[in-house]
Amino acid sequence: MIKTYYYNHDEGKMYHDVDLTRKAELLQDTRNLLWIDLYNCTAEELKYVGNIFDFHPLAIEDCLHDSPRSKVDRYEDDEDQYYFFVFHALRYDEEKEIEITTEELNIFLGKNYLVTIHKKPLQTIGRIAATSLRSYHYMNRGPDFLLYSMVDGITDEYFPILERISARIDELEDEIYVEPVHEITEEFLALKRNIVLIRRVIQPQKRIFANVNGRYSFEIDEENIPYYIDLVDHLERISDGVESYRDLISGALETYYSLVSSRTNDTIRMLTVISTVMLPLTFITGFFGMNVPMPFSDSYVATVTIFLGLMGMTYWMLKLFRKRRWI
Amino acid sequence: MIKTYYYNHDEGKMYHDVDLTRKAELLQDTRNLLWIDLYNCTAEELKYVGNIFDFHPLAIEDCLHDSPRSKVDRYEDDEDQYYFFVFHALRYDEEKEIEITTEELNIFLGKNYLVTIHKKPLQTIGRIAATSLRSYHYMNRGPDFLLYSMVDGITDEYFPILERISARIDELEDEIYVEPVHEITEEFLALKRNIVLIRRVIQPQKRIFANVNGRYSFEIDEENIPYYIDLVDHLERISDGVESYRDLISGALETYYSLVSSRTNDTIRMLTVISTVMLPLTFITGFFGMNVPMPFSDSYVATVTIFLGLMGMTYWMLKLFRKRRWI
Amino acid sequence: MIKTYYYNHDEGKMYHDVDLTRKAELLQDTRNLLWIDLYNCTAEELKYVGNIFDFHPLAIEDCLHDSPRSKVDRYEDDEDQYYFFVFHALRYDEEKEIEITTEELNIFLGKNYLVTIHKKPLQTIGRIAATSLRSYHYMNRGPDFLLYSMVDGITDEYFPILERISARIDELEDEIYVEPVHEITEEFLALKRNIVLIRRVIQPQKRIFANVNGRYSFEIDEENIPYYIDLVDHLERISDGVESYRDLISGALETYYSLVSSRTNDTIRMLTVISTVMLPLTFITGFFGMNVPMPFSDSYVATVTIFLGLMGMTYWMLKLFRKRRWI
Amino acid sequence: MIKTYYYNHDEGKMYHDVDLTRKAELLQDTRNLLWIDLYNCTAEELKYVGNIFDFHPLAIEDCLHDSPRSKVDRYEDDEDQYYFFVFHALRYDEEKEIEITTEELNIFLGKNYLVTIHKKPLQTIGRIAATSLRSYHYMNRGPDFLLYSMVDGITDEYFPILERISARIDELEDEIYVEPVHEITEEFLALKRNIVLIRRVIQPQKRIFANVNGRYSFEIDEENIPYYIDLVDHLERISDGVESYRDLISGALETYYSLVSSRTNDTIRMLTVISTVMLPLTFITGFFGMNVPMPFSDSYVATVTIFLGLMGMTYWMLKLFRKRRWI
Amino acid sequence: MIKTYYYNHDEGKMYHDVDLTRKAELLQDTRNLLWIDLYNCTAEELKYVGNIFDFHPLAIEDCLHDSPRSKVDRYEDDEDQYYFFVFHALRYDEEKEIEITTEELNIFLGKNYLVTIHKKPLQTIGRIAATSLRSYHYMNRGPDFLLYSMVDGITDEYFPILERISARIDELEDEIYVEPVHEITEEFLALKRNIVLIRRVIQPQKRIFANVNGRYSFEIDEENIPYYIDLVDHLERISDGVESYRDLISGALETYYSLVSSRTNDTIRMLTVISTVMLPLTFITGFFGMNVPMPFSDSYVATVTIFLGLMGMTYWMLKLFRKRRWI
Repeated sequence: MIKTYYYNHDEGKMYHDVDLTRKAELLQDTRNLLWIDLYNCTAEELKYVGNIFDFHPLAIEDCLHDSPRSKVDRYEDDEDQYYFFVFHALRYDEEKEIEITTEELNIFLGKNYLVTIHKKPLQTIGRIAATSLRSYHYMNRGPDFLLYSMVDGITDEYFPILERISARIDELEDEIYVEPVHEITEEFLALKRNIVLIRRVIQPQKRIFANVNGRYSFEIDEENIPYYIDLVDHLERISDGVESYRDLISGALETYYSLVSSRTNDTIRMLTVISTVMLPLTFITGFFGMNVPMPFSDSYVATVTIFLGLMGMTYWMLKLFRKRRWI
Repeated sequence: MIKTYYYNHDEGKMYHDVDLTRKAELLQDTRNLLWIDLYNCTAEELKYVGNIFDFHPLAIEDCLHDSPRSKVDRYEDDEDQYYFFVFHALRYDEEKEIEITTEELNIFLGKNYLVTIHKKPLQTIGRIAATSLRSYHYMNRGPDFLLYSMVDGITDEYFPILERISARIDELEDEIYVEPVHEITEEFLALKRNIVLIRRVIQPQKRIFANVNGRYSFEIDEENIPYYIDLVDHLERISDGVESYRDLISGALETYYSLVSSRTNDTIRMLTVISTVMLPLTFITGFFGMNVPMPFSDSYVATVTIFLGLMGMTYWMLKLFRKRRWI
Repeated sequence: MIKTYYYNHDEGKMYHDVDLTRKAELLQDTRNLLWIDLYNCTAEELKYVGNIFDFHPLAIEDCLHDSPRSKVDRYEDDEDQYYFFVFHALRYDEEKEIEITTEELNIFLGKNYLVTIHKKPLQTIGRIAATSLRSYHYMNRGPDFLLYSMVDGITDEYFPILERISARIDELEDEIYVEPVHEITEEFLALKRNIVLIRRVIQPQKRIFANVNGRYSFEIDEENIPYYIDLVDHLERISDGVESYRDLISGALETYYSLVSSRTNDTIRMLTVISTVMLPLTFITGFFGMNVPMPFSDSYVATVTIFLGLMGMTYWMLKLFRKRRWI
Repeated sequence: MIKTYYYNHDEGKMYHDVDLTRKAELLQDTRNLLWIDLYNCTAEELKYVGNIFDFHPLAIEDCLHDSPRSKVDRYEDDEDQYYFFVFHALRYDEEKEIEITTEELNIFLGKNYLVTIHKKPLQTIGRIAATSLRSYHYMNRGPDFLLYSMVDGITDEYFPILERISARIDELEDEIYVEPVHEITEEFLALKRNIVLIRRVIQPQKRIFANVNGRYSFEIDEENIPYYIDLVDHLERISDGVESYRDLISGALETYYSLVSSRTNDTIRMLTVISTVMLPLTFITGFFGMNVPMPFSDSYVATVTIFLGLMGMTYWMLKLFRKRRWI
Repeated sequence: MIKTYYYNHDEGKMYHDVDLTRKAELLQDTRNLLWIDLYNCTAEELKYVGNIFDFHPLAIEDCLHDSPRSKVDRYEDDEDQYYFFVFHALRYDEEKEIEITTEELNIFLGKNYLVTIHKKPLQTIGRIAATSLRSYHYMNRGPDFLLYSMVDGITDEYFPILERISARIDELEDEIYVEPVHEITEEFLALKRNIVLIRRVIQPQKRIFANVNGRYSFEIDEENIPYYIDLVDHLERISDGVESYRDLISGALETYYSLVSSRTNDTIRMLTVISTVMLPLTFITGFFGMNVPMPFSDSYVATVTIFLGLMGMTYWMLKLFRKRRWI
């Protein structure tokens, strides 16, 4: 599906579903902005748009295949240049086995046009598109501001996920004292997997907007720079958070080992106590059960003596264990 | 609540609660200094001040939300430029479940004004404000010195916290030999959590003041540079300390594993000793308890012989265990 | 075996098995391209070709020996310069003890010629050679495009291997709950070994094509640069993937420890339960089995009382264990 | 205590306890050198000297407080510049609970003077002071050579400590097979603590003398540069050593885990053997001890048969265990 | 022992044992090359040579003491400059307790002379010296080629050691399933120690020859550069290998933990099975051994019933364990 949004600067008006064959005319005034949103599009539609803008075949191919690494590529044309971006939105579903999946968003950024390509509907894109039907709020500040709005929207969706992970780590730190091992280990693996995935997604995304020696990897209008600085700050914050969670998870896992080992120790201690008390008692009864003559074996004196002896022994051993703080 | 402190250089006098609408007049002489402290302010107050100084909406928004990452942003205005800082003070309360929390401090630094925004009262800010009511000690050396005084005050509050953590690690290294596992693991998790948090707070703070190729990320008066070098040294010291504590904690945790495992070994050894001694004895008494004819089973000779045999066996086994250093 | 493929630009035609002694004439027009493929060649053949192109003896020697590190060396000649590359293709065979082996590919890249040397047939080279017999698809865009096609083909062969490893990690995360330890540990070691090997192969390969300050380590035609950017992106993707797998494997192994320890705990708990129930019962029967007079020892009252007492004790203990969630 | 050493270049003579108020006159000739050693000095003495040389209050304050991080600060004066150094000497005492402590040495380095401040007597300073009473060996090559001599002396004191630690690691690797766990873990913690401390001390020290792009962080006379290169080499060597020890300690600790676990396994194996042999035997004797009629229960045939059966069973089980290499 | 090798370029001839006092004359033609090999030399011989070439006392001192870190120092003279290198050859002896030792090689590299100093005979030096008695193969391409030949020879000796370590890791991965713990842990410690040592030796060596921004840390003749590139490649290869081995060893050690823990689990399981089967049986025989009246206690019916009951119980329990896959 191809949807187009067109901002005419002179008229100060928004149009949609414009005729793409009029591209040259539409984009003549560099202050105009054309946004083409290809959602769940066929390869034909993609190639159709690609031809209109004369995009490089490698970039077109990247749109067709999943590429799990965000990036920006700069392509130079006869006339001008354009940039090709790959971004990733996160989808989080705690019920599924693989809790976090990524949704790819490909963007072509030209002088005064923007082409977005994605397989499934993205919340952020939908919101901006809905607004752009009526208002030029997102579209009258250049294509780099529109790009910023999209990436900022995607990035903001990371924060609730991070908060949920943070909450789950907190819960896990309490659960290790009560839950069975199967639940704990599965939760550990799931959290670790999530962290690994988010890191893998966020690191290249961060690098795209990094400011190296005052220069950006693509052209940004001077007055939009504060927005991009803010965006990088958000990405850094996510990145810092992920690193912290990594540390916390591995700390919790290490602690869990000690706990399990220590529980084993407790169990063995109980076994040792019961054996140490019972085995000698059983031996003594066995001794007096032998078919050999014993002194006083016919009188109740023996019975009472043995009984008291066994009681005393038990009492003394329990006392000893209590002293050693074993029970 | 908005409080203002104004230093008039020509008069060499401090004023407070000045009229902000006279801003232009107040700041005409660049050697004057205006400090506006917004404490627990409403969004309206914030916007009111923001309008007077014409601050960027992104910075204003950052003041309204918590941002867990310290940073400095440079904004350029038509007339001049200003810097927006986010700092974090630490609050430490060993009694709470989350022992360390951060308190955000936002600062706008202009040519001859400083605007501080914070939700809760901060000790350092309070102290400087109290002094500034009467004396221009903090305010006659430019806004960068005032900024330094604030950040230095916040930073100095980190040291007692680090010392307390260091002391707790020392205690922990002794406690692992005596305390129950639940206490130990909770202390480990708490310490690790604290370290992760302090690292996350201190690293971006350090970067703000880092001197890259002799240049600072914001403008510092030549004669105040030694103060900032001193500040960076303090931040480095905190950072070094935190790294060391990380190492020490993980070293202690690793050691704790060995201890727990070894204790398990001791318990099992005791169980093995008692079983090894008692089970054969019980077997022998069982043997002589069978309802089959035994030689001499009617005479006391058998009784005595068996008794002595059992004693001898026990003695011999205990001796063997002693030799093997098991008991 | 020496095979040659020659593209004549003026005629727009492909030739093969050309006479190498006519080298100077063939390469006169810099838009022509000569590709010499030495497969499973003898040292003599290698030296023969080396002499024709006057290659440096160090490079020739590198072709003769295995060098497990990819690299590019630049050699300068009187007339011109050429580059010597070492690449590695992966071969993956899950049945063998060492699952991943590398296949070396040496390439000389000159102004308008390319010499490839490899011991065993390589799928990618074979495919390109087959195409080049009839079409100049790979050969009319300069030697750097031909080089790109080869390296891209080799690199694409990494992806199915990575996917298989990813799938094996997923399986392993489930298997740790059911499989015996021997299988698990062997799988861990095999996966770790594979990861170590792929990392060792991919890192230097990545460095060869890295763009440092806009400069490549060898000369690339302006219009082929997008292809190399794409190649680097693929290599980065492999590298990112390998790092993630490393994390996942070590996470799974750490989890596995907890599992094993916890299972030990369960087993010991069962032993403790059975001992705690049985040892006291056995003691009581031993007590009444002693050859000393007991009250009511002749009537069925004793029998029934003891029996009920034993049953009650057992019931009470089982209830206690259930309450403690041990059984 | 203030001691002064003065080298007069023209006269080629050493003086000591010179009058500091004549400072300007003494230092007129830049080839002269004045060394002031403040040992265990009061704050007044420090301020007195600070005033004479007009040192920055921040540096003076740093002298009064402990600062656990070595550093060099450059201060610029109206007339000239000077450097303020913080160094740390190590004190090693294996008998104390905290084995390694640091001793701070503060140095002001001016054009032709050097001021050293330290709380306790330092061996190196004492040695140089003693020599300088009579000979100008250390003082006729500029203040940077005198500084080098001091730092080199301090650095050389690190090597015996490192060697002792290395020896203790070697011992530890043997002790893990014989010593009780308490000794082993305490030694581990002590060694780890020492390593962490030395690292924390040596890293900033190294950075002070690091040569970045051929420039040093302070001014060094051309002909003294080889000495500083040598010093950096020593510092690097210490740093390398510490890293290696870190690896070795953690390697030894990891090995120790396996050992402890394995010993537990051995103990349990012994328990299993004794139980597996004894429990069935006891059961059989119990069986024949029941008060029910048994065949041949009156003849010695039963006795002998049972006895031989028990012996056979024991023999067979022991053989089985031996075969399994359990005993 | 001092041996000298002299290549006269004009005559195209080798001389040996030349008179060092004629140094100036010998080295007049910069294309001549003088190599002085000091092997197992006394301090006097060293100082004698040092005086002839006017070497810096710090470099001479470094030759007299062991310095475990490879390095290159540049010394500038009135007339010209020279370089001082420290290299390390490895000696590997699996039989000794410390398997890998280093052999130091000190080299002075001047414009057309080379001085090598080493305590013990080095294979590589010996080989080159033997060749140089008759042929100028190593000596007619400048002192940097001679240096290359020596370092390359030393470096090539690392490879068989690495291969042996690799083979030992492979063996270890199999041995962890069969060998006793003492052997395994000692092998782990030995391998780890070797890896730590080789890393410590190879890293500084690598840095000496590293090409930073196209510049080497010492002067290399343009035409010898390919040789040094090749050398760096070898050093990188060693370095990569060592890192991989580190990973593999720690992977194997981690796996070994699981194995040991799992074996403990198996042993305990066997104990639990035997106890669970035997303790109830023994209890039942004890029950019928009590001196109280039992029904049918006089007839063979009781005997057979009990016997069958015990058999049935045992069968049922074994079946249960089999179902749970415990046996």
